[in-house]
Amino acid sequence: MDAADPLAAFRTEFALPPGVIYLDGNSLGALPVRTPERVRQVVEREWGHELIRSWNDAGWFEQPYRLGRRIAPLIGADPAEVIVCDTTSVNLFKVLSAALRLRPGRRTVLGDGEAFPTDLYIAEGVTGLVDGGRSLLIRPEELDAHLDGDVAAVVLSHVDYRTGELLDMPGITARVQAAGALMIWDVCHSVGALPVELGAANADFAIGCTYKYLNGGPGAPAFLYVAERHLAAGPVQPLSGWFGHARPFAFEPGYEPKPGIGRFLTSSPSLLGQAALDSSLDVWERADLGAVRAKSLALTDLFVSLVEGLDGIEVVTPREHARRGSQVALRHADGYPVVQALIARGVIGDFRAPDLMRFGFTPLYLSYTEVWDAARHLAEVLASGEWQAEHFSRRGEVT
Amino acid sequence: MDAADPLAAFRTEFALPPGVIYLDGNSLGALPVRTPERVRQVVEREWGHELIRSWNDAGWFEQPYRLGRRIAPLIGADPAEVIVCDTTSVNLFKVLSAALRLRPGRRTVLGDGEAFPTDLYIAEGVTGLVDGGRSLLIRPEELDAHLDGDVAAVVLSHVDYRTGELLDMPGITARVQAAGALMIWDVCHSVGALPVELGAANADFAIGCTYKYLNGGPGAPAFLYVAERHLAAGPVQPLSGWFGHARPFAFEPGYEPKPGIGRFLTSSPSLLGQAALDSSLDVWERADLGAVRAKSLALTDLFVSLVEGLDGIEVVTPREHARRGSQVALRHADGYPVVQALIARGVIGDFRAPDLMRFGFTPLYLSYTEVWDAARHLAEVLASGEWQAEHFSRRGEVT
Repeated sequence: MDAADPLAAFRTEFALPPGVIYLDGNSLGALPVRTPERVRQVVEREWGHELIRSWNDAGWFEQPYRLGRRIAPLIGADPAEVIVCDTTSVNLFKVLSAALRLRPGRRTVLGDGEAFPTDLYIAEGVTGLVDGGRSLLIRPEELDAHLDGDVAAVVLSHVDYRTGELLDMPGITARVQAAGALMIWDVCHSVGALPVELGAANADFAIGCTYKYLNGGPGAPAFLYVAERHLAAGPVQPLSGWFGHARPFAFEPGYEPKPGIGRFLTSSPSLLGQAALDSSLDVWERADLGAVRAKSLALTDLFVSLVEGLDGIEVVTPREHARRGSQVALRHADGYPVVQALIARGVIGDFRAPDLMRFGFTPLYLSYTEVWDAARHLAEVLASGEWQAEHFSRRGEVT
Repeated sequence: MDAADPLAAFRTEFALPPGVIYLDGNSLGALPVRTPERVRQVVEREWGHELIRSWNDAGWFEQPYRLGRRIAPLIGADPAEVIVCDTTSVNLFKVLSAALRLRPGRRTVLGDGEAFPTDLYIAEGVTGLVDGGRSLLIRPEELDAHLDGDVAAVVLSHVDYRTGELLDMPGITARVQAAGALMIWDVCHSVGALPVELGAANADFAIGCTYKYLNGGPGAPAFLYVAERHLAAGPVQPLSGWFGHARPFAFEPGYEPKPGIGRFLTSSPSLLGQAALDSSLDVWERADLGAVRAKSLALTDLFVSLVEGLDGIEVVTPREHARRGSQVALRHADGYPVVQALIARGVIGDFRAPDLMRFGFTPLYLSYTEVWDAARHLAEVLASGEWQAEHFSRRGEVT
């Protein structure tokens, strides 16, 4: 399978440590080999040598837009609909605030009670600012029962961060919009893992991070997407800093938002973080998303076929391709020490309480051989009982 | 003067390009020589080699707190009162939102109409979320006349970004608090330029950036300060992301803020930006702020004495030491082309519309000789009329 893999050559684009099978790219993606040099250039040349002149000469002002245009094809968006800035949580705050203002009189936001919690916490923060506002936590399958006339927006993850379940983006978007609400997709766990088609799905807003499958680096800047039809309506968001102003260098006392996606900017971009992301997008520019998706499904198919039936293991991730992202979640009553025992063998996955072991499959730098070996290690860890060693149960901060 | 300068040795800590007199450290500070190596280590070792394990092993989770503790002595704060995260604008949104909730029933925020506009725009954004809320723009000298029972908070810059005027932090704070309002200081243009004493002034909140006098790098993460008495009261801010949750890895659906300053965190820190800041704070750890202030005043005294009386020049920055930050603003009817002509000679200052030339004086890496030379260049540019060359008037994006 590796010999026939059309993406096999991408492995050399990443600096993975020896002796490691890295199945946590769904949490923090690997380092592209060219990124250190790109970051060094920004630090030493653009900052150190050119200093303040780089704002103009090195295109620093343009970076949020330029990086947005580079991400657009990965999420099926128009280049003018995407911008890179801040963090996923901050960006959700912006688009959710904008969505509520686009639906005056409606005060409910629906979220998935099992979603990655920061989305729920931010929805709580945003609705807490609205008189009578509320954030209601449901499960996606209960959506229709809750889509009443008070729902302004629905926030859902395209791929569930724990189970790896992939939701039906076009179908859910259509149902939400039919009820008069706006649909916000969190694509943190799908961007770079499979073709995301926000435009084709008619999504209203989206947010996503770049440090998972996109390999932008730890704490890399996030992105946000706003459908052109909403940009045309002049959406308002309250994090109205000077970078979103129509004329930031006129230093006018009153805020007047830029036309277009720029009004979702707040302040100075993190240039070092953006440099690393820019470098990682050079790799993505050469990757075919169809091939990425095909390999992702083949890798996860292989892993599931090798681990199902192992002692105490339940495969939680859906078997149907249409409902699967690029990770496999396994339930095991002692998942925490099992994951620690795997890490001790160099197989890096992670654990999510109370009992889920997560394994992410990144088609650009994982081989079928590694998947085979990872499954073998898991079988050996379970069969040998080595996970029962006392030190594997000692918990630090969990990532 | 250079021979007697106790800070002269710090110059070797910075990588300044040859042929440049850099008077724009009040906009983007210079690169510390050790920063590229520190960033490289984070990129190659912590990210590339250790991958996800660095969240625990390299202390990534602790960074916002650790960097806050390092900044605390620079702003006269307790280590538990400061945290590094996000941007100045985003942090102002947080502390201003918290301040409004601490003063229920009051709906006005006062700001300086001449302040750096992002503070005003954010105040507009925050008060726009409050029923009947308003952001009222005044001048600092008009403060008392506007401190009525509806004022929840006042936001002022410690040092004016254009004129370089330093405000009386303890006096103004006391007057604002006597009127029942909360005082928020923007210390972007004073941190690292002079000893900032937030605690002694009894300030309620503060925000600041790290890419000016602190030399943290372009788009470096910002910080915020919350007085311990407010932290004890459990202030609430709406950017309630998972990093501010009491138990972020319990993945609970409801938001429960951390005790202490951690509740002002929102999401993953920018690790590359934080690494550069960490490196620059190594330099600051060895700098005596009293000596920095003494040299800053001596540098600006020298510059003012050399340029006052030059043709068409008006010194805008206050002459009194107690009212001066670490920059000198000169008014000239043709300030824009004059600044461009200076830049062509390697003297980098900047311009703020309509007619202000700004020159920042950074005591850690500027010599008295450079100040002398800069003044000489300005005199020559004005006397020769070389600024009238047509290409100096052509405007790009202004920084």
